[in-house]
Amino acid sequence: MTGGCPRTSTGEIAYPVEVDYAYARVPGDLFSPATALLPSAGLVRWAPLVPPLDVPGLGEGGTPLVELEPGVLVKDESRNPTWSHKDRYNRVAVSAAARLGAPGVVVASSGNHGASAAAYAARAGLRCVVFTGENLPPAVDAFLHAYGAVVLPVPVAARWPLVRRVADEFGLHPVSNLTLTHTGHAFGPEGYKTIAYEIHADLGVPAAVFVPTGYAELLFGVWKGFTELCRLGVTDRVPRMYACEPAAGGPLARALRDGVAATHVEVGPADAYGIACPVGGDRGVVAVRESGGEAILVDNEQLTAARAELARSGLWAELSAAAGLAGLRALRSTGRSPDLDGPVVCVSTSSGFKDRAVGSGARTSSHEHGGGVGAEWAEVYRRLRTDGIGYW
Amino acid sequence: MTGGCPRTSTGEIAYPVEVDYAYARVPGDLFSPATALLPSAGLVRWAPLVPPLDVPGLGEGGTPLVELEPGVLVKDESRNPTWSHKDRYNRVAVSAAARLGAPGVVVASSGNHGASAAAYAARAGLRCVVFTGENLPPAVDAFLHAYGAVVLPVPVAARWPLVRRVADEFGLHPVSNLTLTHTGHAFGPEGYKTIAYEIHADLGVPAAVFVPTGYAELLFGVWKGFTELCRLGVTDRVPRMYACEPAAGGPLARALRDGVAATHVEVGPADAYGIACPVGGDRGVVAVRESGGEAILVDNEQLTAARAELARSGLWAELSAAAGLAGLRALRSTGRSPDLDGPVVCVSTSSGFKDRAVGSGARTSSHEHGGGVGAEWAEVYRRLRTDGIGYW
Repeated sequence: MTGGCPRTSTGEIAYPVEVDYAYARVPGDLFSPATALLPSAGLVRWAPLVPPLDVPGLGEGGTPLVELEPGVLVKDESRNPTWSHKDRYNRVAVSAAARLGAPGVVVASSGNHGASAAAYAARAGLRCVVFTGENLPPAVDAFLHAYGAVVLPVPVAARWPLVRRVADEFGLHPVSNLTLTHTGHAFGPEGYKTIAYEIHADLGVPAAVFVPTGYAELLFGVWKGFTELCRLGVTDRVPRMYACEPAAGGPLARALRDGVAATHVEVGPADAYGIACPVGGDRGVVAVRESGGEAILVDNEQLTAARAELARSGLWAELSAAAGLAGLRALRSTGRSPDLDGPVVCVSTSSGFKDRAVGSGARTSSHEHGGGVGAEWAEVYRRLRTDGIGYW
Repeated sequence: MTGGCPRTSTGEIAYPVEVDYAYARVPGDLFSPATALLPSAGLVRWAPLVPPLDVPGLGEGGTPLVELEPGVLVKDESRNPTWSHKDRYNRVAVSAAARLGAPGVVVASSGNHGASAAAYAARAGLRCVVFTGENLPPAVDAFLHAYGAVVLPVPVAARWPLVRRVADEFGLHPVSNLTLTHTGHAFGPEGYKTIAYEIHADLGVPAAVFVPTGYAELLFGVWKGFTELCRLGVTDRVPRMYACEPAAGGPLARALRDGVAATHVEVGPADAYGIACPVGGDRGVVAVRESGGEAILVDNEQLTAARAELARSGLWAELSAAAGLAGLRALRSTGRSPDLDGPVVCVSTSSGFKDRAVGSGARTSSHEHGGGVGAEWAEVYRRLRTDGIGYW
């Protein structure tokens, strides 16, 4: 489940176990608009096409598409139970732990993934051990503890070996990666693919999907969901998949350029901590190539501009979460954008609460788009104070 | 709209303008389960029964019911666009501003209400001025600024007069209270009542609803929604409505005890800043009395215990948001709980990110339910460090 495919993996590249289904037995009306979409159902809505849901849900998924401008929609994944897309992953991955009889889960994460695993483990009455980096965002620190996780800050290089060791010694089920190149938990993308089902229910098949990309599990999951809709005869095409990686890293862009299945990169300083990954996996390469998409690198400035653009539309996203929109803007600005015939969807993965600057005293957002007290209001404020002896 | 009813209000009690509809013209299938519930629709889903939605939405509402134990469900309002119930209010209140041609909105709030108003104003291209207290929670400070609001910290006593003055001088539409006892924006509860429609779609009519209560606009809105379902013949009963106020204040409990329409109280120190209100309004009294409910006072200890109980089920709530569950537990512990025949719903209004302690360095949550590194894991951690020369 988490060690990669034993037959195809090599000493340099790990390949994930790929999950297949008895597609011929999927009920014909699963994608019918008449089928109820009650938000409380969560991933159960798609039970015939997801792994067994052994642990109780939190109403994950069912997130809205929010129009940013005509033809550009944001899939707002901050509307999940722990306010990120990771809840789709952890409903199925923690279910695997329960099915295997593990006493809990272990995960390496300094952000959304660990918090989400902790929430689903808590709900299922399972233990959760999270190896974090030493610079945990204040909000993530607070909610990991709230869910009752055991939080162990360790050096970055130690995280994966420690996950393996704790898994071996204590029988905790690992829900993050253990392999040389990324494979992650085999069930993760099976949760993510429900994003494709929902986009299809809302909109049909868009021309392209722009996805914040770290290990590319989300990118692959969304792509897989659309390929399944084709396979089942529900649709006849798959959107172009655009991987949007921080320019400080970009293992998928490198792998595509070098024509390899997966590779490693050095990661420079990146504020988008959620997707600044040193290692990729072959699933991202497959999703981009098969769909006629591309890997786009976005720098901090482009990410910050995209985050501000989202906030101007009422969506406060984590910096990493703005990578999808940043990628769309970057692609359009190059002039080499292919003819995207139809609406495009940018996935926004998480809420702005989770950035490091929030609660640390630094206020990065206020000056991004003139949101501070401008000259006009500074004057009003001064006058209110001067006049306002009765109030102050 | 915001000055109270000019005919019925007196020098001591303000009564709100009450919104009525041409109920006979509501489409017969509005509450039919077959009607699509796409999450992107937001309040538009209920357009025949809400005020005009002039500003674009963010997919507000459509939040799940999460089972806490058999017969106890949590309506998780942290799943809204700005992660609180206030988005239902502001979609309609900011729409009123747009319809009136105001250049923006003004609001007094140190929490969810201001942030939500700022998001909807930003999306509509309107200005938003927020008078806050001087002890703004870090996350609220961050996201108010992200949405581009003008944030003006002022003494608490100055907030309402300043809202009125800025409304008068600059023509900004006030979306918070301006009256002696609480009336708030007349449209606010019209947004909140969609919670009742959704609970009914998911569950039918519960035996009781427990609602975190400050000014009681949410309480009244949910009650009104159920009364409308009766009026339209969709159901034949209304749940008992339980107002759950912090014991440090409790203007609604006082008004009910004193047999008055609304009153003021002194508010003592309360961590549940979102609902520690010094003034009530008559709507809360109406909802509790008409439904056979009660006002329950919950102290900090009960709130903290309820927040921890929610976190153990994977729901990280703001302290104020846990008041609904705290009220249920308090009522049951008294032994004077009426026979509640059927499931009960506790509304959880907002996410844990918004509490003051998050990001301030204080970590209040970690010890609430043993979520820290317990003795077992402290030993494991020590051993990993000792053994782990290769890792550290």
